Amino acid sequence: MDGVDTVTLEASDVLVVAEPLPHPARREIELASVLHALSDPMRLRIVAALATGEERSCKSIDLPVVKSTCTHHFRVLREAGLIRQRQEGTARLNSLRRDDLDVRFPGLLAAVLAGARN
Amino acid sequence: MDGVDTVTLEASDVLVVAEPLPHPARREIELASVLHALSDPMRLRIVAALATGEERSCKSIDLPVVKSTCTHHFRVLREAGLIRQRQEGTARLNSLRRDDLDVRFPGLLAAVLAGARN
Repeated sequence: MDGVDTVTLEASDVLVVAEPLPHPARREIELASVLHALSDPMRLRIVAALATGEERSCKSIDLPVVKSTCTHHFRVLREAGLIRQRQEGTARLNSLRRDDLDVRFPGLLAAVLAGARN
Repeated sequence: MDGVDTVTLEASDVLVVAEPLPHPARREIELASVLHALSDPMRLRIVAALATGEERSCKSIDLPVVKSTCTHHFRVLREAGLIRQRQEGTARLNSLRRDDLDVRFPGLLAAVLAGARN
């Protein structure tokens, strides 16, 4: 078509600008925020799924919610200090901050995980 | 005044109709509801104040909130199964359902109370 330039992009030309993923430091993790983050059945399922210690993506955890809701739940968990999120290419990987939580609130995560299994 | 009857009431004539105070049975206490009830700093303070085992009225616990807010927090705690409320005359007395919680979610209340003290 006259007057229209077409540009072909290679994968290496595309810069994925990931949104920043702020995490509270261990000492900044608040009990009320942790309990709030855990007070949703979907978020409890996510935490239980991450309790194996593996790093997992949002979609690898079988949840009956749409992707945007899943993204929201992971953000609440990250902001409360329950999980760590990191971007690897286009994948966002999630892991439980078990050590930080066990130091900050000894016994809490274990009791919640046991309660979630029953 | 003509045509107006006045009636003098004795204290014994007055029937206080208290609102019903439904409590979930032990097996009905849900983890997500318990965590939600505990996820508010004022409600955490109430639970910590009741952890001595004493039955206490709303106003005996020093909280920087108005009475209606206090009443709301106690209702959330009762409906989640964290506290028992009973009416004694005009006073509403509150106690922690520690035995029920310890059977339902072992270690949870102890971990939360320890976390709230730090």
